[in-house]
Amino acid sequence: MREAPVVNPIERLLEATAADMAQVNALILSRADSHVEMVPELARYLIESGGKRLRPMLTVAAAQLFGKGKGSAINFAAAVEFMHNATLLHDDVVDESDMRRGKPAARMVWGNKASILVGDFLLGQAFMMMVETGDIAALGVLSAASAVMAEGEVFQLAKTGDLTTTPADYAEVIRAKTAVLFEAACEVGAMSGGADAAGREALARYGLELGNAFQLVDDALDYGGQTGTLGKNTGDDLREGKMTLPIILALTEGSETERATITTALGDAEATAEQVANVVAILERHKTLARTLDQAHAHARSAQQALEVLPASDMRALLSDVVEFSVLRAY
Amino acid sequence: MREAPVVNPIERLLEATAADMAQVNALILSRADSHVEMVPELARYLIESGGKRLRPMLTVAAAQLFGKGKGSAINFAAAVEFMHNATLLHDDVVDESDMRRGKPAARMVWGNKASILVGDFLLGQAFMMMVETGDIAALGVLSAASAVMAEGEVFQLAKTGDLTTTPADYAEVIRAKTAVLFEAACEVGAMSGGADAAGREALARYGLELGNAFQLVDDALDYGGQTGTLGKNTGDDLREGKMTLPIILALTEGSETERATITTALGDAEATAEQVANVVAILERHKTLARTLDQAHAHARSAQQALEVLPASDMRALLSDVVEFSVLRAY
Repeated sequence: MREAPVVNPIERLLEATAADMAQVNALILSRADSHVEMVPELARYLIESGGKRLRPMLTVAAAQLFGKGKGSAINFAAAVEFMHNATLLHDDVVDESDMRRGKPAARMVWGNKASILVGDFLLGQAFMMMVETGDIAALGVLSAASAVMAEGEVFQLAKTGDLTTTPADYAEVIRAKTAVLFEAACEVGAMSGGADAAGREALARYGLELGNAFQLVDDALDYGGQTGTLGKNTGDDLREGKMTLPIILALTEGSETERATITTALGDAEATAEQVANVVAILERHKTLARTLDQAHAHARSAQQALEVLPASDMRALLSDVVEFSVLRAY
Repeated sequence: MREAPVVNPIERLLEATAADMAQVNALILSRADSHVEMVPELARYLIESGGKRLRPMLTVAAAQLFGKGKGSAINFAAAVEFMHNATLLHDDVVDESDMRRGKPAARMVWGNKASILVGDFLLGQAFMMMVETGDIAALGVLSAASAVMAEGEVFQLAKTGDLTTTPADYAEVIRAKTAVLFEAACEVGAMSGGADAAGREALARYGLELGNAFQLVDDALDYGGQTGTLGKNTGDDLREGKMTLPIILALTEGSETERATITTALGDAEATAEQVANVVAILERHKTLARTLDQAHAHARSAQQALEVLPASDMRALLSDVVEFSVLRAY
């Protein structure tokens, strides 16, 4: 990979998509509205809580890349963000998470019940926005993503605390729960931008590989990233019993004692900071954080390669830089 | 209304739609499948638990009524049933229900988490089946229904135990949470059958009014129906704090003592059979069960009237009889 660019590529992506994203954000706000007060209150609490809106930015960026826009990218971008937020609402209930984006999770404020139902509402609104484009092919891409994402979450749930989980199982979970929505976001963006079959395929692969890289980095960051630096949220996945790659590899390669240290803390919501530190030390000893990040790099390279079939342009270069930045988060 | 027909109209509807429903049922089973074992296990547990499949039957019956079938009714019928089952899974989590269709609710067997996620999966699969028809207008009808249903559930949640709930609030809740899916089921059926605008509108109104009648009857049955006959599930809505019409009317018209008897039991999961019996006695004294059923009858008549713009046919007569039967359940 090239040297990291001087200006943060996410900032440059924000700038390049600003005009479209202003429309997307207006649409998001208006479609989160309802005469049932709890709906916009809860939805806006989450939506305005400072997420990066990376997924909808990718949708409008992909449309810009091809530039023969049919104008439907705005709707698809808002729909993608709603799908993502619906998933977050349901995931926080399923994971019993207390915090999201540095604030109490919506379920801590309005309860699990409202979080489930407002998630359903956002999903319904997402489909309505898609339908308004009249683009049935793009609707197919996003509805398939929706089913696969839920299936991936069930698979992750079934594998929670399951010590026999393999790296292949893990690869399937992150593809389904994260990468498929990145893939769909980029693919429908390309479709709205008038991409041909090769362009559409390139952007789909770009999104899928970027999403895989993104989740691998997240899963390494949960244990402090490359350097295993301990922070206040370090070990959340451990306490929830999530079978992520750093743990799967360490369980395979660790000694009996190391395995016991891991399995005692795994899935124990009350595991202490010291227990987490001991587990992180094992992950470092077996270099499983570094190897997780190596896999992230490999996916990142694939994402960049996917773009190479397309004509060179500023947007293509920017999308390539975004990939690089997304893995640098871990250092 | 005419005399009740000799043969149960639901049985006759089953017979009239048997060939189409065999296809619908096969599609439902195949689309509830997944390599993630927990998905088909949980989904089939609910799907095969002996629900009447009234909604998908209405979809194929509506298509048959117009008879210029585009063949998409099968997909829409299966999608409607998946939407309904997704809602049941989420509702049982929200209502903390232990039982569904005489068996332990899915959440009691697989847990709340799996019920939420498999509900999401069924919704995603529903949209995929709709997309496969290529009928974007019908997709619009069903996606709007999906958003309104969730909104209605949030409204019902917000109104739980709220003593200021009005009959108008109640009418809005039952329209959104129940009638809109009946409406959509009938409307997309008519659309797949090649109905013109008037036919489509007639079936939409038929479904909406039937759905309203259906829910009013359900809410009266929860307190024992017309006769206030106490059974083992009598008073579930009371214990959950659901503001249904029999309770709303009794709170408006009851004495201070009667109001106190109701409000003490309302929302108390541990309310005794005696408390429930005392509340039912109040509902009978103010005839609020009978008046709830009067409203059901009025909606049922509207449903039948909606059909009258259409040419007479055996199917039209059968759909009219189905309405009649749906309100007779309460006696």
